Amino acid sequence: MNGAEALLKTLVDAGIEICFANPGTSEMHLVSAIGRSSEVRPILCLFEGVVTGAADGYARMADKPAITLLHLGPGLANGMANLHNAKKAHVPMVNIVGDHAPYHLPHNAPLTSDVTAHAKINSTWVKTSTSADNLAKLGAIAVQQTSVGTGRVATLIAAANHAWEPAEKSYRARRAKILPDVSPEVVSAVAALLRNGKKTAFVLGGHALREDALVFAGRIAAKTGCPLFGETFPTRHQRGVGRVSITRVPYFAEHALGVLGEYEQFILIGAATPVAFFAYPDTPSVLVPPTATVTSLASIDEAVLPALSALADAIGVGAGLEVLQDRVLPDRPSGALTAATIGDTIALLMPDNAIVSDEGITCAAEVFARTAGGARHDWLAITGGAIGQGLPVSFGAAIACPDRKVIALQADGSAMYTVQSLWSMARENADVVIVLLNNDSYAILNIELARLKTGKPSDKTLSMLDIGHPSLNWQSIAAGMNVRASRAHSAEEFHAQFEAAMQTKGPHLIEAVIKQDIAAIFSMEN
Amino acid sequence: MNGAEALLKTLVDAGIEICFANPGTSEMHLVSAIGRSSEVRPILCLFEGVVTGAADGYARMADKPAITLLHLGPGLANGMANLHNAKKAHVPMVNIVGDHAPYHLPHNAPLTSDVTAHAKINSTWVKTSTSADNLAKLGAIAVQQTSVGTGRVATLIAAANHAWEPAEKSYRARRAKILPDVSPEVVSAVAALLRNGKKTAFVLGGHALREDALVFAGRIAAKTGCPLFGETFPTRHQRGVGRVSITRVPYFAEHALGVLGEYEQFILIGAATPVAFFAYPDTPSVLVPPTATVTSLASIDEAVLPALSALADAIGVGAGLEVLQDRVLPDRPSGALTAATIGDTIALLMPDNAIVSDEGITCAAEVFARTAGGARHDWLAITGGAIGQGLPVSFGAAIACPDRKVIALQADGSAMYTVQSLWSMARENADVVIVLLNNDSYAILNIELARLKTGKPSDKTLSMLDIGHPSLNWQSIAAGMNVRASRAHSAEEFHAQFEAAMQTKGPHLIEAVIKQDIAAIFSMEN
Repeated sequence: MNGAEALLKTLVDAGIEICFANPGTSEMHLVSAIGRSSEVRPILCLFEGVVTGAADGYARMADKPAITLLHLGPGLANGMANLHNAKKAHVPMVNIVGDHAPYHLPHNAPLTSDVTAHAKINSTWVKTSTSADNLAKLGAIAVQQTSVGTGRVATLIAAANHAWEPAEKSYRARRAKILPDVSPEVVSAVAALLRNGKKTAFVLGGHALREDALVFAGRIAAKTGCPLFGETFPTRHQRGVGRVSITRVPYFAEHALGVLGEYEQFILIGAATPVAFFAYPDTPSVLVPPTATVTSLASIDEAVLPALSALADAIGVGAGLEVLQDRVLPDRPSGALTAATIGDTIALLMPDNAIVSDEGITCAAEVFARTAGGARHDWLAITGGAIGQGLPVSFGAAIACPDRKVIALQADGSAMYTVQSLWSMARENADVVIVLLNNDSYAILNIELARLKTGKPSDKTLSMLDIGHPSLNWQSIAAGMNVRASRAHSAEEFHAQFEAAMQTKGPHLIEAVIKQDIAAIFSMEN
Repeated sequence: MNGAEALLKTLVDAGIEICFANPGTSEMHLVSAIGRSSEVRPILCLFEGVVTGAADGYARMADKPAITLLHLGPGLANGMANLHNAKKAHVPMVNIVGDHAPYHLPHNAPLTSDVTAHAKINSTWVKTSTSADNLAKLGAIAVQQTSVGTGRVATLIAAANHAWEPAEKSYRARRAKILPDVSPEVVSAVAALLRNGKKTAFVLGGHALREDALVFAGRIAAKTGCPLFGETFPTRHQRGVGRVSITRVPYFAEHALGVLGEYEQFILIGAATPVAFFAYPDTPSVLVPPTATVTSLASIDEAVLPALSALADAIGVGAGLEVLQDRVLPDRPSGALTAATIGDTIALLMPDNAIVSDEGITCAAEVFARTAGGARHDWLAITGGAIGQGLPVSFGAAIACPDRKVIALQADGSAMYTVQSLWSMARENADVVIVLLNNDSYAILNIELARLKTGKPSDKTLSMLDIGHPSLNWQSIAAGMNVRASRAHSAEEFHAQFEAAMQTKGPHLIEAVIKQDIAAIFSMEN
């Protein structure tokens, strides 16, 4: 048994089933060990941003880690933007990054870099192997580390020679920690706050946006009359017919300030205090009124579900009071293809238990609003704001849930960042329907430009936000990676194509050619 | 004048002409300042790896820095692999990375990350603005820092509010430093070594591979009978007819050990001691014999040209003794399309003063060998081994040298990493002919697998190195980004398509469908 084999056995024993990989020479013994194993499924991706984003999507849906296999510092660097999103999503993930043998490092070969420095940026736990045996031992610790709190990104740096040198044995990961419970005193204190007469709102995030937790939140809201807000970019939000619905905190700070401004007291449940995405001249960073009090019932890393259950008990509300979302059937859309008609089509046609990976950017709010009364679904948002997440997350979710339909609501500009995802979807026949929102623009940046008060933009300024010269042809790009594709110019065309895609297994990209009124998007959002 | 405008004026005054950009909200005042300026040309790229790779290619050919404009930590992360290559290439580059306003950072908004930690990995100089006025001042220092030694990557982190707040003035960068001269004592010592009777070889890198320096190296080699080796992955190597040619140190360690093993003494000129790219079981890291002496005439960061001139004087060799490369005209190739026939076509057809960006991986050595007697050209290699460099570098080189033909010799697997380059080439009508080597494989990894002695690979192992299931359709991918494309299956087809491409301005991708015998590639490489 060499170090690579000992590590692999350790990971398999810890329940790892999937390895998203873009390996190189320094990982070749790990590749060989996986190749000799019948237990880990390797999934090749043609760029590391796909690897890490897919592992994030997998973890969101499987509630357990996949491993990634990455090639030295530059390979890890290519995956870092989606590791940033994964860190902000609090998902479990184990990165295995090869590095040179320690005796080779001082020679400063071309691919030498400070892998640890790369890894520390987005990983809570980073260790480098010191021997073949230690490599396997660290594998067990890495898996354990992913189950700290809601989830953590752990990175194990595997020196090439520790993979090929002989190892003694594999190791067993200790049982995953349970999330710490919120104390009864905290629950009582929050229950008391709900009786103080202040105008109160709840802000939900993390596990509080899962169906089981939302039921209790819904009862508490019904009993107290206090509204439920949800964080703007949730890791996984379970919504649709028969579930308790929430109001998402708007993306634009000025809208959020309006929505939240009337409350005197906020109760956080698995969420942080709402803050602006960016700083803007003359706009505050914190989106709750400065005079409001903010109290946390449970942090993202505490047991949210029992805390909500206890709070419901404390305020004396039992089952049945929660308001569940009705089925809302919009008319079959017609005419111009817009975010609204796309949302209506999805609401009408998505199957029960669908998964939506949302990187729809300027189209997302409208589609989100229109699908509230559609079939039950999980909504996965861009947690860290680093674009290029949507396609990989949809792919990883499809790997985790092969029996569920995945819909990638995907803006064009950000699709380009990890466009290589399409190839892996084709290779694995992932059941993902990509709604590729082609507006020929970094539309969000045109809005941000106006919000930042930089003055009337010149044509040269606007050219830097314009991706329509030349226009990207998404049917061709998809065909280049063997993904079935079609193009829709009207609501009717889109509806027909989406309907066909819902009835077929495997990846399908629908290029939705939309025209957007930038000013209207801005005023409409919430 | 706001901070962004003061910074831009500072950069313009320091000679900056080009900004490769993928901006976001936090850089919007910089975008506006560029938009209002007539002096800096902004070039939009749809992924940050294209931005940084293009700035590297530009610097290699322009011998001066471009600026990059990047969006916070994740935007910088996406550009880091090519910053790694740029660092190893010793090119000048100024990265301008936006970050949140300092007062916004403590709120941990989604895109908050440690931008400095990202930047330090590949930049020699990193500073964050402390005020609008300081932002401009740091811009001047950043440009100065790029001219330390042969070249440096400098990163200026621009807090969003320092871009929009008022600034007093712009700043003037101090005159670029001159490279330090090698002392006469070092030159005399090396001249003495050349008379000690030991079997000696020169290893050339950095500026020693430019035409002006090669002339002196050629004279010294002719006089002493000592061969000229060149580093395996040079930043910019000027070669072809009428120039002094060198023997490149082979990529594979076992080949390099054979080639270098007979020498007792090595003289380094702008190069480091040759080392293996990776560590392998039972293979040494250092590629010169352990008993050999290694002496540096001039480091990469010293003045190589005067050192060579002085050494020529010291050993008493004047003009005219250097051996210049003859024009070698291969037959017009026919039959199967291989690296050899591609090399022959390029040798026959590339125009004088062409630029070759080499990310040909397993095809590169053969094409390199075949083009030795072709027209004069600059050969730009993958300096840091981080793949995804070839297309962006070719693009940046075309921006720097609009009157020269650029040939991107590009492997398929690595092309996918920064495939977004094609769109920027189309947008800017960059004069790049991409020879897309489609072998449906990470062929190099199949070779590395064998070299690493991991045992007979299973089908599952090989599937992790196989990018041919499904096959990428490069004509479709190119069409999706508005780049003209054609496909060649035979030497004749390739020759005809390459000939047509040489006679047309603007980007053209030729998908060269090649079959490779992996074992043969390995045994052939040098």
